[in-house]
Amino acid sequence: MNTPKIRVGVIGAGNVGLALVDLVNDESRSIALVDAATATLEVVQVAVRDTKKPRPGLDPALLTTDALALANREDLDILVELAGGIEPARTYIEAALRRGVSVVSANKALIAECGTELSQLAHENGADLFYEAAVGGGIPILRALRTSLAGERIERVLGIVNGTTNFILSKMTSEGSSYADALHEAQSLGYAEADPSADVQAFDAAAKVQILSSLAFGTELRGEEIAREGITGVRSVDVEFAQRAGYVIKLLGIAERVGEHGISRRAHPAMIPREHPLASVHGAMNAVFVEGAKSGPLMWLGQGAGGVPTATAVLGDVLHAARNRVSGRHDVPFSVDDRLHSIEVGEIASVFYISLDVMDEPGVLASVANIFGRHGVSIQSMEQSGFGDEARLSFVTHTALTKAVHATIDDLAKLESVDSIGACIRVVDGGVA
Amino acid sequence: MNTPKIRVGVIGAGNVGLALVDLVNDESRSIALVDAATATLEVVQVAVRDTKKPRPGLDPALLTTDALALANREDLDILVELAGGIEPARTYIEAALRRGVSVVSANKALIAECGTELSQLAHENGADLFYEAAVGGGIPILRALRTSLAGERIERVLGIVNGTTNFILSKMTSEGSSYADALHEAQSLGYAEADPSADVQAFDAAAKVQILSSLAFGTELRGEEIAREGITGVRSVDVEFAQRAGYVIKLLGIAERVGEHGISRRAHPAMIPREHPLASVHGAMNAVFVEGAKSGPLMWLGQGAGGVPTATAVLGDVLHAARNRVSGRHDVPFSVDDRLHSIEVGEIASVFYISLDVMDEPGVLASVANIFGRHGVSIQSMEQSGFGDEARLSFVTHTALTKAVHATIDDLAKLESVDSIGACIRVVDGGVA
Repeated sequence: MNTPKIRVGVIGAGNVGLALVDLVNDESRSIALVDAATATLEVVQVAVRDTKKPRPGLDPALLTTDALALANREDLDILVELAGGIEPARTYIEAALRRGVSVVSANKALIAECGTELSQLAHENGADLFYEAAVGGGIPILRALRTSLAGERIERVLGIVNGTTNFILSKMTSEGSSYADALHEAQSLGYAEADPSADVQAFDAAAKVQILSSLAFGTELRGEEIAREGITGVRSVDVEFAQRAGYVIKLLGIAERVGEHGISRRAHPAMIPREHPLASVHGAMNAVFVEGAKSGPLMWLGQGAGGVPTATAVLGDVLHAARNRVSGRHDVPFSVDDRLHSIEVGEIASVFYISLDVMDEPGVLASVANIFGRHGVSIQSMEQSGFGDEARLSFVTHTALTKAVHATIDDLAKLESVDSIGACIRVVDGGVA
Repeated sequence: MNTPKIRVGVIGAGNVGLALVDLVNDESRSIALVDAATATLEVVQVAVRDTKKPRPGLDPALLTTDALALANREDLDILVELAGGIEPARTYIEAALRRGVSVVSANKALIAECGTELSQLAHENGADLFYEAAVGGGIPILRALRTSLAGERIERVLGIVNGTTNFILSKMTSEGSSYADALHEAQSLGYAEADPSADVQAFDAAAKVQILSSLAFGTELRGEEIAREGITGVRSVDVEFAQRAGYVIKLLGIAERVGEHGISRRAHPAMIPREHPLASVHGAMNAVFVEGAKSGPLMWLGQGAGGVPTATAVLGDVLHAARNRVSGRHDVPFSVDDRLHSIEVGEIASVFYISLDVMDEPGVLASVANIFGRHGVSIQSMEQSGFGDEARLSFVTHTALTKAVHATIDDLAKLESVDSIGACIRVVDGGVA
């Protein structure tokens, strides 16, 4: 039997791109790859900004600076887009899809921005658009949602989908580091960028939540802003409080059903019980916890970043797209459920941990409690700690609407006896037997 | 567009079968199911032993006692086999496959016995044979190995794939229960059978390891016996020793590469570090931990048993088979790598925990140590505990060949000063950063 050839073009030769080319060209895996692709894969060209930069292991003859010409190549079967960002990545992808070339992307920002439209374009042109590597690095969660769980009613998805912030919070938990020290260590180990804001401000987690939500529930990917809180305000005292109370603080991306057709999507720090499977996801690892109505809890764990693990997810997509091309078909894009609507974060009920720096004087608790009561936020437990300038009141509320808690916080901040709002972190329970 | 109809026959109406029929007929999910199947699913017949038994929610008109006639029905698209056991399940499946009917099975014993042959038969007749529910209940691990990880070189698979034994060992760990009490509790909660031997003797885990190995490495499924040790000998003192040393005892199914073409498959209790993701898999939960050469560690966690979660895995397979039938194709079976050979368990190196009940008299340690030395098994640490009739020596060895450790144990048992071998449990490390 003649093995068909599938021609792959790659845009971007950073860590992921170089690792992908290595994986495709790995002699020791060539039989396995032909089996999995039902074809021989050939990387025909790699588009880069600077062809002069030394790239060990990459044949310089493959390099080009003209990414658009690569996307438009007559003989291309699959385009792998690893450029990142919205433009010009979008232009390249659209050019390829319009010609019926399948696209594999790791570009979470772009997919969150216009994934629905691009998937539709792929479908209209008989091509595939896959982006497994956009969420959870090497963890094959998106294909599972698309295939194995296609028949399941998913109730909630909780994700530790940002390795940088998980590394920082893990350090703060296991070693008692301050946020600043843990961030610095993450930067020196290459886990965090010099400007860490996309990670620590939860922009990255928010984009990934939107992608998970689209596959779990059928929400659209069209660049909606979702509620987002970063971890920059998490203090050592909050981490210690969580530990005493049997919790761990994680940055969670959350997508969940609210009522029949409501969906809440958000990314923020949360306290989760120490026994929860997500609580043992340490360091730069990622995990996605899915609560199915019938399957019960399911969790995927793995390396959320790194060139080589991420390249394995890209390769999984390339193999799938190759099989489809050889058999002359493409996957139907996941359906959009147009009955769904977004629920504002203010309408979401949660238990909250709230910590206040207060004046160390009589009557403070009474005035604080008065404000909680006025907003109908009832208190489950209270802890008073520190003295003088360090005096602190820490509360855990009963379940309350976020808007009521935010209004409480606003009023508390106005109290003379409250120096500052130290923390307002949600407590996320449930999901496991 | 006319939605095609896919006709599904089900053999077996136990917990899984009834839950599957409910899932397929769930009105609230009908749009989602049509989307996922690209067809309307219809359960056309359900074969049972006794049509008189009351089965709430199941239309009695669908029942038949003639499973073979169902497998041979002219108009059938997919046969779901939930009968269990080797025969007559095998006869039904072969009948269906020979007619080009796709088969979904949850039958781990049968798949471990002749999965390679049945997959080949399916392929020859243009049909699919899927069995996601045979390993890990509702956890979609097999499809991930088949698809997303098809290009990955997997080095090792560690599975907690038996909920009964994990429940028992979790109880022994968290509550200090004895094996007998924990087994009794598992039985009264319905987690363990009256005759628990398939679970506690690791027959069930061994079959699942063979299935995982076939997808991870390309080993054949043809009923080979693999090395197997149960948990009946695990004592409270062993669980306590593990805890003091920072470990947790789990029944693991293991499949791993040894050298270039060797594969070791086995199921036995093992001590794993408390920080390992598998260590936090409690109660009746299952998990599969995969170490990929490039992807790094990956773990899947979920409910390993229960009618409804297991039925979701069956449904995932039915949807996949339905999509394939609508598009007139079938999945190519995973490849068998015929360069692989089984490595005897004696040739596998491991760290061991060995505990001896000994006479409380001088010179015992010297004679014991002498025997370890004679077999070249070197000792990493030793603990002496108890007095009189309770005197015990507990050792952790350095890495040693299993056959050397077994020979050591045989000789130790012959020593007059050794009353009995209390435990010989492997210590499994590594796999996570």
